[in-house]
Amino acid sequence: MDPRIREHAEIIANHSVDLQEGDNVVVDAHPVAEDLVVALHEVIGDAGANPMTVSQRTGARQRRAFLRAADDDSEARSASNASGGTASFDTPEHELALIQNTDVYIAIRASDNVTQTADVDPETSAAYQQAHRPILEERLSTRWCLTQYPAPANAQLAEMSTEGYERFVWDAVNKDWDEQREHQANMVELMDPASEIRIKSGETTDVTMSIDGNPTLNDYGEHNLPGGEVFTAPQPDSVEGEVLFDMPLYHQGREITDVYLEFEGGEVVDHSAAKNEEVLTEVLNTDDGARRLGELGIGMNRDIDRFTYNMLFDEKMGDTVHMAVGRAYDDTVGEENEANDSAVHVDMIVDMSEDSIIEVDGEVVQEDGTFVFEE
Amino acid sequence: MDPRIREHAEIIANHSVDLQEGDNVVVDAHPVAEDLVVALHEVIGDAGANPMTVSQRTGARQRRAFLRAADDDSEARSASNASGGTASFDTPEHELALIQNTDVYIAIRASDNVTQTADVDPETSAAYQQAHRPILEERLSTRWCLTQYPAPANAQLAEMSTEGYERFVWDAVNKDWDEQREHQANMVELMDPASEIRIKSGETTDVTMSIDGNPTLNDYGEHNLPGGEVFTAPQPDSVEGEVLFDMPLYHQGREITDVYLEFEGGEVVDHSAAKNEEVLTEVLNTDDGARRLGELGIGMNRDIDRFTYNMLFDEKMGDTVHMAVGRAYDDTVGEENEANDSAVHVDMIVDMSEDSIIEVDGEVVQEDGTFVFEE
Repeated sequence: MDPRIREHAEIIANHSVDLQEGDNVVVDAHPVAEDLVVALHEVIGDAGANPMTVSQRTGARQRRAFLRAADDDSEARSASNASGGTASFDTPEHELALIQNTDVYIAIRASDNVTQTADVDPETSAAYQQAHRPILEERLSTRWCLTQYPAPANAQLAEMSTEGYERFVWDAVNKDWDEQREHQANMVELMDPASEIRIKSGETTDVTMSIDGNPTLNDYGEHNLPGGEVFTAPQPDSVEGEVLFDMPLYHQGREITDVYLEFEGGEVVDHSAAKNEEVLTEVLNTDDGARRLGELGIGMNRDIDRFTYNMLFDEKMGDTVHMAVGRAYDDTVGEENEANDSAVHVDMIVDMSEDSIIEVDGEVVQEDGTFVFEE
Repeated sequence: MDPRIREHAEIIANHSVDLQEGDNVVVDAHPVAEDLVVALHEVIGDAGANPMTVSQRTGARQRRAFLRAADDDSEARSASNASGGTASFDTPEHELALIQNTDVYIAIRASDNVTQTADVDPETSAAYQQAHRPILEERLSTRWCLTQYPAPANAQLAEMSTEGYERFVWDAVNKDWDEQREHQANMVELMDPASEIRIKSGETTDVTMSIDGNPTLNDYGEHNLPGGEVFTAPQPDSVEGEVLFDMPLYHQGREITDVYLEFEGGEVVDHSAAKNEEVLTEVLNTDDGARRLGELGIGMNRDIDRFTYNMLFDEKMGDTVHMAVGRAYDDTVGEENEANDSAVHVDMIVDMSEDSIIEVDGEVVQEDGTFVFEE
C-alpha cells in the first residue's frame, strides 16, 4: 500500500477526530477508496476502537437506483390516485439509531463517476435529503471528518492525471497541521478583533465589509481534511463595492465563470457572469439571504496550488479569498450580531496572488499573496 | 445490467424476506456484488422501504486489517504488562443499535479473494465473533436472507469459469420457488410423521436413525437463497451403521475427502478420511456432541448439479443427502426429544444418484435419486 495512504489514515484518526479506545466509529466510503478504508481499519485496530463501514453518503450508484425507483413508484401512485407525484421519504430509524450511537464519523469522498446522479430529479434528491436531515444533524454532533480519496474519476474532474492528482491530494492533506495552525493563527489574530475588511484585486474588485463582533475561526484540518482557511461572517448589511470572482465556480454540475457582483448596503444590486449567468441569477433569487454574504474566508493552504472543481480544496487554496452568498455559520456570528439566513451557501473565489491587497482596519495585511507576518 | 441480477433481487425481496413498505433494510455486501446491491436498491425504492448498505459481515480485507492491528496492539500491551496476549473486543453498540432497528437483513456473499483472512489468528477471529454474538442474534430476529453473488473469486473456488459460475448460481437461485416448495413438501409429508430413516449407498454406506417426534422442515429459499432441502434432527442416541461421505468437505480452508464414520448407539466409534484425516479427528474431538449427528438433510435443488466448495449450495444439491455432526437446530427437535448440543455443526454429503436408496419406516422413498412421488 502507498505509504501516503497510511499517513492519511493516521492524520484522520490522530489529528482530525482524536480517536480514542472504545470509540464507535463509522467509516462512510465508496469502494474506490478501499485502500484508505483498510488503512483506517489498521489505525482503528491499533486504537482499540470499533469500526463499521457503510456506503450511505458515498454510494451514489445505489442511491440513484433507489431514488429513481422511488420516483417511478410515486408517479405510478400519483397516476392512480392523483395525490401528487413527488416521492416522499421517511427518516430511516435504523440509520438514525446507528449514528446516535456513533462517536466518530469519517466520510471519505471518492467516486467512480462524479456525475452518477445526473439523471435523478433534483426535487426527489431534495426530498431525500430533507428526510435525512436528523441523521445529518446527528453526524455533526459526533467527532466528524470529511476528507477526499484521490480516485481516478475525481482526478478527471480536476482535469489531472491520476498520479498527479494523488500527489496533489496527499500534499494538501499529509501536512504538519500544528505548523499550519500556527501560520493561520497569525491571520486570526489580525482579523478577530477587527472591524473592517477591504479586499482589492485587479481593476474591478474593491469591496469593504464589517466583521465587527464576529469571531474569526481557524480551520486546520479537523472537520475538513484538508483544512487551511480562516473564516468569519460579514455583517449582512455592511458590504459595499464590487467583486470579480476570477476563479470558476461549479454549482450543481454547471460551471459559472467570471462572476461579477456589485453590493450596496450589503445587497447584491447587480450581477453578471461570462458563462451560465442564468444559474447565478437563480442562486441569487433563492431568497433574500441569497443576495447577501454569509462568509468571508482566507485560503491559506499553499499545497493547494490549483483549482480542482472541488470546494473541499478550492476554498483553502493559498493566496485566495472566498466569499459565500447565503447562510452564515452560527459560530462565526457574534451573539449581538445578525446572522445572514438562506437556503443556500455558495462559495466564490478571488485569486489574490497578483495585484491584490487585503486591508484590516486600514492596514495592509496581505499584498500579492504575501502576509505581513511573513515578511 | 444482466437481467438475471434484477430477477435475483426480486426473489430476495418478494420471496425470501417479504419486503414491505416502510421496512428498514440493511444490505451487507462486498463491493464486487455492486450490481446486485444496485438492483436491490431499485426493488427497495419500488417498495417504499429504507435501504442502508454496509460491508460488515462481508468486508474481509478491512476486517483482516482491523483484527491484525488489534492483535499486534494486544501483544504490545501484553509485553508491557504481562496480562495475556489475545485481543479482546467489545460488542459495538452502534452496530447493535443499527440491527435492533432493522426489519430486513440481507447478506450477500461475494469476495474478491476467498482466502483474504488466511493470515488472521483463529483465536482473534473467534474472540471477534464472540463479541459480535449479540449482533448475530439480532440479525436472526429480523426477516433475514443469506445469498450469493457470483464473483470471479467465488467462481475460482468452485473451479469454474466466471460465466459458467454465473449461470450455475442464477439457475439455482432464480427458480419458481412455489413449485420447488411443493416438490419438497412431498418429502416432508413422508418424513415428518416417520420414525426410522435408512440411507444406503454403494458398498459401504448403510445407516439407520430415528427421527421420531422431530419435525421435518421445508427449506425453499427463505433464509438461504438458494434453498432446496428438507431437513430434521436424528435422535442423538439412535444412529447405527456406517457412512462413506463421497463428496469432499471443506472445513476451515482445508479439504477433507472420503470421510468414513461408523456409529454405535449414536456415537462415532470409528472414523477415517483419505485426505486431512487429522482435521476430521479434531472436529470429532471438539466435545461430546461433535461425535453425534445433529442434522439429516435431503438435497433437492436439482439446478445445483455439482459440488462448488460452498455449503450454501452443496447441501442443497439434488440427489444427495447430508448429515452434520454437532449441534442440532432447535426447530428440528420435538419438545419431548433431546437436542444434540455442540460448539460445531459440520455438514458432510453423500451422493445418492447411483446405487442408493432412502427408506422411511421400511418403505423405499428414493432410489438412485428418483423419489417415489416422481414416478
